[in-house]
Amino acid sequence: MTLKIKLGIIGYGGMGHWHGEYAPRAGVEVVAAYDVDPKRLEMAKENGIPAYDNLDDFLQHDGMNFVVIATPNDVHKELTIQSLLAGKHVMVEKPATMSVADWDEMVAESEKAGRILTVHQNRRWDRDYRVMRKVVEEGKIGDVLSIESRVFGTGGAFFGWRSFPEYGGGMILDWGVHLFDQLMNMYPETKVTSVYAKLMTVLDQKVDDYFKVTLTLENGPLLHVEVGTFAFYKLPRWYVIGNDGTLQIDDFDCKSGGYMKPRYTDTPVAEVVVMTTAGPTRMMAPRPPETKEDFPLPEVETDWTELYANLVEVMKGNEELIVKPHQVRRVLELIEAIFRSAEEGRSLDVRI
Amino acid sequence: MTLKIKLGIIGYGGMGHWHGEYAPRAGVEVVAAYDVDPKRLEMAKENGIPAYDNLDDFLQHDGMNFVVIATPNDVHKELTIQSLLAGKHVMVEKPATMSVADWDEMVAESEKAGRILTVHQNRRWDRDYRVMRKVVEEGKIGDVLSIESRVFGTGGAFFGWRSFPEYGGGMILDWGVHLFDQLMNMYPETKVTSVYAKLMTVLDQKVDDYFKVTLTLENGPLLHVEVGTFAFYKLPRWYVIGNDGTLQIDDFDCKSGGYMKPRYTDTPVAEVVVMTTAGPTRMMAPRPPETKEDFPLPEVETDWTELYANLVEVMKGNEELIVKPHQVRRVLELIEAIFRSAEEGRSLDVRI
Repeated sequence: MTLKIKLGIIGYGGMGHWHGEYAPRAGVEVVAAYDVDPKRLEMAKENGIPAYDNLDDFLQHDGMNFVVIATPNDVHKELTIQSLLAGKHVMVEKPATMSVADWDEMVAESEKAGRILTVHQNRRWDRDYRVMRKVVEEGKIGDVLSIESRVFGTGGAFFGWRSFPEYGGGMILDWGVHLFDQLMNMYPETKVTSVYAKLMTVLDQKVDDYFKVTLTLENGPLLHVEVGTFAFYKLPRWYVIGNDGTLQIDDFDCKSGGYMKPRYTDTPVAEVVVMTTAGPTRMMAPRPPETKEDFPLPEVETDWTELYANLVEVMKGNEELIVKPHQVRRVLELIEAIFRSAEEGRSLDVRI
Repeated sequence: MTLKIKLGIIGYGGMGHWHGEYAPRAGVEVVAAYDVDPKRLEMAKENGIPAYDNLDDFLQHDGMNFVVIATPNDVHKELTIQSLLAGKHVMVEKPATMSVADWDEMVAESEKAGRILTVHQNRRWDRDYRVMRKVVEEGKIGDVLSIESRVFGTGGAFFGWRSFPEYGGGMILDWGVHLFDQLMNMYPETKVTSVYAKLMTVLDQKVDDYFKVTLTLENGPLLHVEVGTFAFYKLPRWYVIGNDGTLQIDDFDCKSGGYMKPRYTDTPVAEVVVMTTAGPTRMMAPRPPETKEDFPLPEVETDWTELYANLVEVMKGNEELIVKPHQVRRVLELIEAIFRSAEEGRSLDVRI
């Protein structure tokens, strides 16, 4: 049986447009779009996609078996449930929704309907993330004590609905969702025991446009996740400290970075004392070159079309879903704790 | 009256040696040294410094009016008190001592004796710190939301007593004291309201050799202080986010770094969408060059001999002490909260 995803796009804005353009690369057939904005419907038509301004009509589009929901976050839930009731499989853009309770309702509906419910966590396929995992999981830098994940930009302002809390704006619900999903997916069995979050507004007045979050794992490295939207110098995308070396990945493209390890020789490591303006330091003196070794970032194969390919195999009953509801729930639980920690101005003991 | 510091050095190890060699640049006359280690007494003599293995004899050395205490931290208190009782002014190496209660006793003794008690917080004169303050305090990058202070090295192991908790080893009590003193000195009137600390042992088994501390100020930027002793790539010494730009200082020497600000033009800032392996981003797309402006780090004059010069003026009654007992107390209070936060695995509400 050649089963195919015949995709309907709900919300033909930035990400809706992206699915329309790129999903076909994964063998997906885009069959229809729905939006409330006539201009966007016009754009869909120009791109050869039948466009609807009425949800019921859209959901009855002939042959459509899957929808992707790429609207503002506040309407994900109702659109998901209506799509499931119409017998469609559903992939929601991230964040799936804005609360664990909403997600539980959505999952219950999908189970009742016997339809797939998943989330477009496409950044599990990001090259930088895959390279970081490969180095860490192959033990290249020993036992890992700290993983820092940062995304910095200078845009400094949100577009459209993303600057309104009521629509689920702000960076925790935007980039944050990806970055937490990546790390939670790396440590599926390891509980987060503490959450400490600082949410700031650098330029924006209403939603977080700069955050720093620290997650403590029960048996695992300390996780730091940071997003800044008005940062004119970039800190590395990934910075990882192990007890046998350090990993740095500068940017998404993995064109610079590497990992460096100690090389154990007879050379004493820190005999040198370095003078700073006001005093000496021995601990922070540079290592003799022969006592360290530099490694390039490894190559990885990664192809985000796997995400769509997986959905086809799930429809056929051949594979398990990659982006699973319970994983989505965990990230939402984390995000609720993050907002609570930030609001209360303290760390929270959790088991997530 | 030409009053001069005639300095006795207690503990002729690394820092004791440093005072012996460099204090004369500040017009200080080094008149004697005391140590319990015969090898070190030998070294002092070789450097032309009369050396004592008996504290009482040392304290009666003719004309000595000031002592500097550069021993392991656990004996700072008793040596300070004995020196004060012998009528000497005292400068202790950092950390002054290991608890607020001990410090209070030391201060009470100095007041009773009518003698100076201060701490060698020489890093208030560090060029990188002065440059950071200048940029921030002159408002070059607007209102500051976050200041990150990092010192990374690869030594990876402590020397001598510094690896033992009972002697006050570990990085919080070593570099930490300097870094907290710098920031507290920058915000003397602003209360720290929350302390969150993670202390780790990367290579060392007994004391912290990697820490991350977050301090929340009542009305001020979020402060992050981090020291790593086994970090093969350096993150910048200072990284500061303001609402009108970003500051980065790469290292102590201030040879690289700068600050960058937005330039408001008619060019739309974030029209570009950047494709990463797995998806697009607009917020994190690069800025058009004409919408930002680069500035070099400013020049600053800094001279650590001011610290000794100040002590002479205090002895003459002409100046206030620069490194004041209540400032030292504040840092010790902070450090106690840091150890408690790390031990309890949570943030602490404080007023420090």
